[in-house]
Amino acid sequence: MSAKAILQTHPRPLIADGPVLARCIDECAGTCTICADASLAEDDVRALARCLRLCLDFADTCVATGRILSRQTDPDAGTQATALEACATVCRACAEECERHAQHHKHCRLCAEECRRCERACDELLAALAH
Amino acid sequence: MSAKAILQTHPRPLIADGPVLARCIDECAGTCTICADASLAEDDVRALARCLRLCLDFADTCVATGRILSRQTDPDAGTQATALEACATVCRACAEECERHAQHHKHCRLCAEECRRCERACDELLAALAH
Amino acid sequence: MSAKAILQTHPRPLIADGPVLARCIDECAGTCTICADASLAEDDVRALARCLRLCLDFADTCVATGRILSRQTDPDAGTQATALEACATVCRACAEECERHAQHHKHCRLCAEECRRCERACDELLAALAH
Amino acid sequence: MSAKAILQTHPRPLIADGPVLARCIDECAGTCTICADASLAEDDVRALARCLRLCLDFADTCVATGRILSRQTDPDAGTQATALEACATVCRACAEECERHAQHHKHCRLCAEECRRCERACDELLAALAH
Repeated sequence: MSAKAILQTHPRPLIADGPVLARCIDECAGTCTICADASLAEDDVRALARCLRLCLDFADTCVATGRILSRQTDPDAGTQATALEACATVCRACAEECERHAQHHKHCRLCAEECRRCERACDELLAALAH
Repeated sequence: MSAKAILQTHPRPLIADGPVLARCIDECAGTCTICADASLAEDDVRALARCLRLCLDFADTCVATGRILSRQTDPDAGTQATALEACATVCRACAEECERHAQHHKHCRLCAEECRRCERACDELLAALAH
Repeated sequence: MSAKAILQTHPRPLIADGPVLARCIDECAGTCTICADASLAEDDVRALARCLRLCLDFADTCVATGRILSRQTDPDAGTQATALEACATVCRACAEECERHAQHHKHCRLCAEECRRCERACDELLAALAH
Repeated sequence: MSAKAILQTHPRPLIADGPVLARCIDECAGTCTICADASLAEDDVRALARCLRLCLDFADTCVATGRILSRQTDPDAGTQATALEACATVCRACAEECERHAQHHKHCRLCAEECRRCERACDELLAALAH
């Protein structure tokens, strides 16, 4: 998903023209990072502390897992599987928390959807690797 | 760009079905990480050492820059600008090196194209932020 | 610096025994990540939004720069220099912001000190590479 | 562990004076990144492909896990545990591979030792969190 949609839900004015900014961000996963940052700018940030925190956990896990699965050279099966399990777990936790705020904050709704997609992609790949 | 195309250029058998794998990787930028890993599996890896190394530099810089630009809350102009300059610089260096190998390795060609797109996106955003 | 000192300044109860936790975190730079997280748990988090944000920027830039400088194989001089400049810039911005909160939050004081040390290390290396 | 010792085992001339360089790198975990890079510069890089690859996996997992455990605010128990399991798994895999090359390459020996320390730290924290 392009960062364009979630950037438009940010409570602060964007630092640059939306499409120009999104093009630059899209090179690297932006959704969760933006949801964390948008939460930080909301009036009810204290109620969003767990959401913000899990979005950061999600972004960090995703980068590591994405890279480990990107590598096809001499992989270690245990490393792949536990990385995917860690990623699916944080996806689920982050989605559940974001879903609790989805009605009040559109960035949480978009982020929850992204987490669910990512969770499914991890589960699907875990199943494929188990064969 | 989806990781699907560059995964198909990898000299090793993929660890899972291409589209399933690509869906999982796409959540996080994969192209440069895959070019580095594909280079590692090539017979002429010693000739690709600089390529492999710059791909890793590129991937690391991209993650950091993508996150800094994702954040709209209380940004620091100097931090944004120097992050973008660092990113544009490594994009250019990585593109130039990958272009040297583009005829022999399709993953280098795809990676060079990605680097050039990323370089343009950084330059465009730098210009937008300078106003 | 070990994560031990800054963990002890966190407003929430630690998730595990301090030294055990610090040993695990120390493998990867923790100070800024912990200052961001501690700020998130403070009552005055809204006043700390810029601090939290710059700590995240700092952590992301530091990881990328630390890796780029770790690599001795076929480096690109421009990539090294701009990465160091980006890192020194975010160190300075983060230190200045954390120093504003240093009297009220000990984690900000410790983080500011870390940022200044990191800024000096970057400047020193930039000077060494320029020769 | 400071990056100083492993930098001295690198087959290429260092990009700057060892202590200056190490001070800058030490801010972020360097050992595995340096072992990967040193392997890339060795004559027998093809025999070290799996080592290089697992070092990159290790570095990526470590950053993510270190950050997740750094955060004390509203943690998710499942996310913590699976991140630690993923980290302990890649530590073990990387240590085993590096130990196979420890007699020929001092950077592999130092990296294996670091991996084992990190593995123990993860196991210890997993046990502490399970109570």
